[in-house]
Amino acid sequence: MKYKMIDGSVTAAKGFKAAGIHCGIRKNKSKRDLGLIYCDNKCTAAAVYTTNLVQSSPITVCKQNLKNGFAQAVIANSGNANTCNADGDEKAQKMCELAAKELGIDASDVIVASTGVIGQILPIEPIEENIAVLAENLTCDSVGASDCAEAIMTTDTVKKEVAVETTIGGKAVKIGGISKGSGMIHPNMATMLCFVTTDAAISSEMIQKAVKTVADDTFNMISIDGDTSTNDMLSVMASGLAGNDEITEEGQDYNDFVEALTAVCKELSKMMAKDGEGATKLLVCKVSGAKSVKDAKGIAKSVICSSLLKAAMFGADANWGRVLCAIGYSGCDVDVHKVNVSFASDDGKIDVCKNGAGIEFSEEIAKEILIRDEIDIIVGLGDGEASAEAYGCDLTYDYVKINGDYRT
Amino acid sequence: MKYKMIDGSVTAAKGFKAAGIHCGIRKNKSKRDLGLIYCDNKCTAAAVYTTNLVQSSPITVCKQNLKNGFAQAVIANSGNANTCNADGDEKAQKMCELAAKELGIDASDVIVASTGVIGQILPIEPIEENIAVLAENLTCDSVGASDCAEAIMTTDTVKKEVAVETTIGGKAVKIGGISKGSGMIHPNMATMLCFVTTDAAISSEMIQKAVKTVADDTFNMISIDGDTSTNDMLSVMASGLAGNDEITEEGQDYNDFVEALTAVCKELSKMMAKDGEGATKLLVCKVSGAKSVKDAKGIAKSVICSSLLKAAMFGADANWGRVLCAIGYSGCDVDVHKVNVSFASDDGKIDVCKNGAGIEFSEEIAKEILIRDEIDIIVGLGDGEASAEAYGCDLTYDYVKINGDYRT
Repeated sequence: MKYKMIDGSVTAAKGFKAAGIHCGIRKNKSKRDLGLIYCDNKCTAAAVYTTNLVQSSPITVCKQNLKNGFAQAVIANSGNANTCNADGDEKAQKMCELAAKELGIDASDVIVASTGVIGQILPIEPIEENIAVLAENLTCDSVGASDCAEAIMTTDTVKKEVAVETTIGGKAVKIGGISKGSGMIHPNMATMLCFVTTDAAISSEMIQKAVKTVADDTFNMISIDGDTSTNDMLSVMASGLAGNDEITEEGQDYNDFVEALTAVCKELSKMMAKDGEGATKLLVCKVSGAKSVKDAKGIAKSVICSSLLKAAMFGADANWGRVLCAIGYSGCDVDVHKVNVSFASDDGKIDVCKNGAGIEFSEEIAKEILIRDEIDIIVGLGDGEASAEAYGCDLTYDYVKINGDYRT
Repeated sequence: MKYKMIDGSVTAAKGFKAAGIHCGIRKNKSKRDLGLIYCDNKCTAAAVYTTNLVQSSPITVCKQNLKNGFAQAVIANSGNANTCNADGDEKAQKMCELAAKELGIDASDVIVASTGVIGQILPIEPIEENIAVLAENLTCDSVGASDCAEAIMTTDTVKKEVAVETTIGGKAVKIGGISKGSGMIHPNMATMLCFVTTDAAISSEMIQKAVKTVADDTFNMISIDGDTSTNDMLSVMASGLAGNDEITEEGQDYNDFVEALTAVCKELSKMMAKDGEGATKLLVCKVSGAKSVKDAKGIAKSVICSSLLKAAMFGADANWGRVLCAIGYSGCDVDVHKVNVSFASDDGKIDVCKNGAGIEFSEEIAKEILIRDEIDIIVGLGDGEASAEAYGCDLTYDYVKINGDYRT
């Protein structure tokens, strides 16, 4: 492991500035609702998007803009998803034009995103009237980045910002990102909004490859509630200002980049899972001994998605039968008579199932382990060499409360 | 529609008796935990089972016993699933033997089932000591049937009993059934315990065919929480005492039987969905205009499974964006720009989405409709002739409460 975690965010890498303001899309004036990220020079850029057939208008526009592999800015709002609206595409395009005009760049170099309620017309006036102030607020320090991270939050309770530093081709390279959850989150580029910036020099083709690879192992391994959103997007912009030789093919430099990008995305994934709607705990399902990575991932996801297990974890109940059950219906190739299950947290580890059958264990010790706020569900399949991790959260009263009356 | 609903249960058909007692598998002495169904003569019989790779021991034994297409009794307990136990198969076999000995039949003619907690050793003594009393209590009236329906309940809040009468080949035929939910319920023979009896004369081969057909359109269209249980089973026993010419092939008589069996199973399905863990409402998603039945079913299931929609329905919130979103990630062939959505209950009907976009509607009227306890979510795809219905329930605080501490 070559990289190290550093303080910082989406402005850690050279060339990037960010800002976030309240423009008026949300009624609550104390909550920022419009964010901007800008790079001094044009970046190579790539993104992965939701697989939902119902896709937001900003995603339609963004796909078009990123076709050439370049971008220079991100504009994103919360409070309105701009999805399932007759004039949605037009409004998303208008957001790009407003940002581009203010920044003196091409509208086709803008990444655009929206998050919030589906099916309500996006008011464009608040953006029109405040884009100049937003651009004025751009800073390359942590303030602008933090404001921007807040501007994309919906039901999130904490801002999600991460940065790492690594060395590529002898040069110091930084990668930083912000993201938002926290409901409607499920495997299959199912995730959220996440904007990552780096000063690495990397070609459009290789950055696209890296984004796809990393998303599959990080964001696509989260599930909050099994719902795949219409607006999800992970985008990465690379300014090239770190001065490394441009990464144009697979090899050591590419691997170093992927390792560091994975670290950023995995950390953001965990932060998102832990801040899932109503969640009180981060759940990490660690599967090993699978016949294939596909089986390992499928089983890890199946466990993390089980409403019954999620509710049991909320109650700190060591109900390992829920784990076995979820493994059994995962559709993966597994011999249930070889399955071992343990629970762990920073309070210790306890074995609860060996070879597919229950074993005696202390309920008291299990409770001590499970009342912590980060729980590992450790599954050994004893049937191969492949492993995977999936990230989720518990199912709580507050999840129901938040979603019982989300719009009003 | 040839059949009519009648008062009655699993003892409505000629030849069947039932009983239910508290034997001591459960600690709570006021809750029956052991049920028995018996027929005076040997029946043709068939069943469908869970698709979970982790299967309960009673299912293993039952599959073996039903291979020849005949059965004469059902023994079932609640309070313990007899799943993931080293001695599980032995105990399930012992349950058959105890029932068979008491009833004077072959152990291989007994259908056996268990429901409850996974991974705890099933105590056989309470069954051994009480099987004689259980058999003594067998009655052909509604008392024994009702006691048996209670004996298989776990977190169910109401007993589920249904009966219909129809005419097959000029003879009056009755079909009656009992079932239990109410968590861990999801499509794909994913369901529950359900025991159906009939006095129709029908061959083992045709009864197996009918069970499979009917399960796909009824129980396999329910979802409570997306979890597919390890113990689910639907079995049907036919005594032949109605005196109709035995059904041995497809045709009018077979169709009449399937129609009536569907009525029983659909009614039980709705009762189970409405009594889903913590549920306050029955949700029925009615999809029409699909390109294929597979697409119609897939979309109806996807909508009914969405945690976000389920929570919105709990809050009587007309958040139709959740419906569109679930349609979009269903994996089915659909043109989202043609989708219409309405909500309905016995208080009226309200259109909320036309051609994939929101339309103006009165939130007050929508609220009035959605506060009722049976809600239809009506989806028109405008793209074909196929239709389907799926059954589910809302997601509530009580679901979390029930499953946060299920074992203790």
